[in-house]
Amino acid sequence: MKVAIVMGSISDMPVMQEAIDILKEFKIETEVDIVSAHRTPEKLFDFSKNAHTRGISVIIAGAGGAAHLPGMVASMSPLPVIGVPVKSSNSIDGWDSVLSILQMPGGVPVATVALNGAKNAGILAAQIIGSSNASVLETIISYKENLKQAVIKASEGLQK
Amino acid sequence: MKVAIVMGSISDMPVMQEAIDILKEFKIETEVDIVSAHRTPEKLFDFSKNAHTRGISVIIAGAGGAAHLPGMVASMSPLPVIGVPVKSSNSIDGWDSVLSILQMPGGVPVATVALNGAKNAGILAAQIIGSSNASVLETIISYKENLKQAVIKASEGLQK
Amino acid sequence: MKVAIVMGSISDMPVMQEAIDILKEFKIETEVDIVSAHRTPEKLFDFSKNAHTRGISVIIAGAGGAAHLPGMVASMSPLPVIGVPVKSSNSIDGWDSVLSILQMPGGVPVATVALNGAKNAGILAAQIIGSSNASVLETIISYKENLKQAVIKASEGLQK
Amino acid sequence: MKVAIVMGSISDMPVMQEAIDILKEFKIETEVDIVSAHRTPEKLFDFSKNAHTRGISVIIAGAGGAAHLPGMVASMSPLPVIGVPVKSSNSIDGWDSVLSILQMPGGVPVATVALNGAKNAGILAAQIIGSSNASVLETIISYKENLKQAVIKASEGLQK
Amino acid sequence: MKVAIVMGSISDMPVMQEAIDILKEFKIETEVDIVSAHRTPEKLFDFSKNAHTRGISVIIAGAGGAAHLPGMVASMSPLPVIGVPVKSSNSIDGWDSVLSILQMPGGVPVATVALNGAKNAGILAAQIIGSSNASVLETIISYKENLKQAVIKASEGLQK
Amino acid sequence: MKVAIVMGSISDMPVMQEAIDILKEFKIETEVDIVSAHRTPEKLFDFSKNAHTRGISVIIAGAGGAAHLPGMVASMSPLPVIGVPVKSSNSIDGWDSVLSILQMPGGVPVATVALNGAKNAGILAAQIIGSSNASVLETIISYKENLKQAVIKASEGLQK
Amino acid sequence: MKVAIVMGSISDMPVMQEAIDILKEFKIETEVDIVSAHRTPEKLFDFSKNAHTRGISVIIAGAGGAAHLPGMVASMSPLPVIGVPVKSSNSIDGWDSVLSILQMPGGVPVATVALNGAKNAGILAAQIIGSSNASVLETIISYKENLKQAVIKASEGLQK
Amino acid sequence: MKVAIVMGSISDMPVMQEAIDILKEFKIETEVDIVSAHRTPEKLFDFSKNAHTRGISVIIAGAGGAAHLPGMVASMSPLPVIGVPVKSSNSIDGWDSVLSILQMPGGVPVATVALNGAKNAGILAAQIIGSSNASVLETIISYKENLKQAVIKASEGLQK
Repeated sequence: MKVAIVMGSISDMPVMQEAIDILKEFKIETEVDIVSAHRTPEKLFDFSKNAHTRGISVIIAGAGGAAHLPGMVASMSPLPVIGVPVKSSNSIDGWDSVLSILQMPGGVPVATVALNGAKNAGILAAQIIGSSNASVLETIISYKENLKQAVIKASEGLQK
Repeated sequence: MKVAIVMGSISDMPVMQEAIDILKEFKIETEVDIVSAHRTPEKLFDFSKNAHTRGISVIIAGAGGAAHLPGMVASMSPLPVIGVPVKSSNSIDGWDSVLSILQMPGGVPVATVALNGAKNAGILAAQIIGSSNASVLETIISYKENLKQAVIKASEGLQK
Repeated sequence: MKVAIVMGSISDMPVMQEAIDILKEFKIETEVDIVSAHRTPEKLFDFSKNAHTRGISVIIAGAGGAAHLPGMVASMSPLPVIGVPVKSSNSIDGWDSVLSILQMPGGVPVATVALNGAKNAGILAAQIIGSSNASVLETIISYKENLKQAVIKASEGLQK
Repeated sequence: MKVAIVMGSISDMPVMQEAIDILKEFKIETEVDIVSAHRTPEKLFDFSKNAHTRGISVIIAGAGGAAHLPGMVASMSPLPVIGVPVKSSNSIDGWDSVLSILQMPGGVPVATVALNGAKNAGILAAQIIGSSNASVLETIISYKENLKQAVIKASEGLQK
Repeated sequence: MKVAIVMGSISDMPVMQEAIDILKEFKIETEVDIVSAHRTPEKLFDFSKNAHTRGISVIIAGAGGAAHLPGMVASMSPLPVIGVPVKSSNSIDGWDSVLSILQMPGGVPVATVALNGAKNAGILAAQIIGSSNASVLETIISYKENLKQAVIKASEGLQK
Repeated sequence: MKVAIVMGSISDMPVMQEAIDILKEFKIETEVDIVSAHRTPEKLFDFSKNAHTRGISVIIAGAGGAAHLPGMVASMSPLPVIGVPVKSSNSIDGWDSVLSILQMPGGVPVATVALNGAKNAGILAAQIIGSSNASVLETIISYKENLKQAVIKASEGLQK
Repeated sequence: MKVAIVMGSISDMPVMQEAIDILKEFKIETEVDIVSAHRTPEKLFDFSKNAHTRGISVIIAGAGGAAHLPGMVASMSPLPVIGVPVKSSNSIDGWDSVLSILQMPGGVPVATVALNGAKNAGILAAQIIGSSNASVLETIISYKENLKQAVIKASEGLQK
Repeated sequence: MKVAIVMGSISDMPVMQEAIDILKEFKIETEVDIVSAHRTPEKLFDFSKNAHTRGISVIIAGAGGAAHLPGMVASMSPLPVIGVPVKSSNSIDGWDSVLSILQMPGGVPVATVALNGAKNAGILAAQIIGSSNASVLETIISYKENLKQAVIKASEGLQK
């Protein structure tokens, strides 16, 4: 019941931090690392092939531009891989990272979330764990209840 | 350990059948239904609010155009929801269904797969179950091994 | 002869305020609320199913990203629903909200206006009321006359 | 309580016919004509300036490519104008007609529906009439109920 | 041998000024006005129908968003009309104005230049005049020679 | 008073033929040739540098994909150059040819028409000639009148 | 002086064949194989890390959808890698493969050619070899001369 | 063994400087110049036709908007040409320069790198030289090793 969060570059950290934070809030253990598909391919191999043997349940992978990290991890790991398209500096409006992560070929899925949607990646990882863990499922149910209460409070503030 | 597969319209069936088939191949039980966010909203509510109490572990939802089904199910269910953007007839090249499913707001993720990627949705559902079920994990590992063997065979055919 | 203005999040308020302002200028009563399709689905149901029984004639709904609010309101209300695509922070250039609102399936229309076009949503709501109300129709005719005069004045200023 | 349906070219008829058909089904009177913004500008003026004096309540305007008809009608009529982007032969995937109709400047709204969405334009016109006409409102409510029943029937067929 | 420069709104002036400036540099007479297709349709008619009877040779029309001005002028004037897509504030990256001006139907061309390309619109107007006026043609030839010299100078600066 | 029509490849002929036909209809002399920017650059130079000395008034250039012909001709000729983006076989939906022709830098305009809009290119060429030639101007006025009559006839047919 | 041509799937063969054919025409030796980044990652590693030790000078890699093969080969090989975006069946108009190959991060270039541009990939590979091999350079010069002659012949045919 | 770096305008220099810098780091000789396809076509001809006779091995060409420089150089030089799409000021999000460089017709390839990817253009030029020069190949191998070490260091920093 541990979630691994990997990213292609240290520059992805500001976006990916939201995944770490929400999982902490959900009291789910994380490990965080930089694994570059293009600059450290050996590490990519080691990480992807062994994650499921080290007690990892879900992998979150974030990358920008021609974002190959999530798909390459998914090609080598049997675990569910969540991909976070990061809008990097020379990106063409984010389309490059979205399409490089989303449009995986048949056989090798990546569970893609919204552009810069690392928070949702964290929640999705928790939902995946919650699908077989009643206590985490309860946490998700409470979290959703809190979302609702926040909107209701905002609505009440508006009416005044 | 059951996967629910819902779709917005019977016309999505040819695409969504691939999710059913691959899960059958993986010997994972499925239930299939048509739930239209726009035409049967009460059914959408009932389905989404209760799926997790009926032994469903993962939900796959497919829809085209302004595809609201996956996101609306995700808003009401604590389970992981996998969204399949379907390229419907009057779609603007599929961009509408892709963006309506992918770009969910913070708090309510949908695990989006490629346009018409129902097969990958099925595999991802299996991976989610496999993340806490050793025997399903083994099935995934075998499946990936078979993918590899098929490529190797094709490569050998090419060399002759 | 009342217009309901709902939005998915308090962060949509700066955009949606323009609809409120123009309707005030037209002396058409409004009610304003936050109704999140993804975070308060029960409220969405209550609001949508009952609006026409509470003296509401037209509904304006604004939302960003994978914007499901206008379409979901339209699925449950028999009233005309005007959708305002809001360009939210992590939006892919606004395409996501535009397409999620515009590309509704056959049977459930949303009257979509331009990106961030809340002012036009307000005018359109007035035109809908004006289509069966001679005094509001007159207001619209005057408003258009004023638009013309403003251009003529600007033109005169330019010629000097 | 009459709906005018105009289109830029006779070649738009196959798409626009769906608006005529649904309004007939709703027993709402229609008048249909070809009014080309680019080839018959005088007719465009006459039509737009006088429609509201001839008992028309709502105007539906369909056009393709650089589609100026809906916006130009809206500039001269105080009535609500519904725009149908038509995917014409040399269109760039429909983006041209969608954007030329949707992105109207502040002051002159066009209620835009989906690409080729003439059926929804007809329903929206009925909803606009229904917003001040209890019997038409009932027709809309029944129509939506029928949509629901069709989905339920399809669902039942699937379960067998 | 006069060029009329019209724009949909005074807010287009900063972009359109470049057309005025270059024509001044070429010593070609201009007249400048605001003509809004959507807010002053009568003025649009008067202007477009009569420009060729008042000694105008070429019309430059600039507009943003769902930009109908250039196409509507072209529908009523036999003169060559140059369209300048202006990137206005709520534009979807400029695509709306580009496509609303460029994608005119068969029979009614608009000579479209680049997004915000008012300077090129001015040069093109001069080239049109120059095509039957030897002295203006000479001016164009000199202008192009100057462009070349500026690049050569920049190149020499770089080599030092 | 001659129009040169050049195209990048013989495969552009079916599209470009429409320009030839309409100019014939207008009784304007044409010369037609294949000039490939990428395969016959010397011919491109000769053609572009000398066209204005050979009695050519306007140049129409059509090309597909990364379409450099219209812009390169414009860089070397002082004449007005009309660019026709051709949707070629491996084009990315025509966006490549549209943007390669439209987005010319300051100083070197190309008068761009719609995708595959060769007919409009021919009309625009006639309008350019007509801007200094009263008889051609009359031809244009008649042509527009005919467009109008055709729409009126279609409208009458519809009413029956 | 050998070129390796790899592709992600046997289904890419009809496109990639053009690279093989043109290199054959240039009398440059090739080796062809299927190497799937997502299904045979070990083979990808072996191939990429060793190609330069086996007498390969240039690598051509073609793939569709979320196309990771060219970039992953480039991450592990010091050789120039030419990427061919293939428009596969569920591609979103080819944008996915184009952007996944083109938008590589700083440090790991892929020389990208046009969508389905395998022939150009072959020519580029020959040009790379020709940059240090006078005889291959001559072949390229002749090839370009032939392209020119073909256009000239087509032009002459047109004039008759 | 010299790389020529040309750009369409001095305003491209901040982007193109990265190509110069990386080649300097690799100790590969460069020559840098401004060659505008649109403003100095004669210089374009001279440069392109003769580069291979002056000891140049590879050409890097950068340009923005309707970027014709790389393709035109490629049409006249037998050398490998690397194209850098530059995101210039009035660019439509960079799509114009990307597509004008990438989508070259069969017969005339341009090796395109990412938007503003001048650094990668420099590395690719070095790889092309390295494909026939063992010492440059070694430099590339070391460079890649350094990229890897930088990621490993960043990863270690993160773990502390």
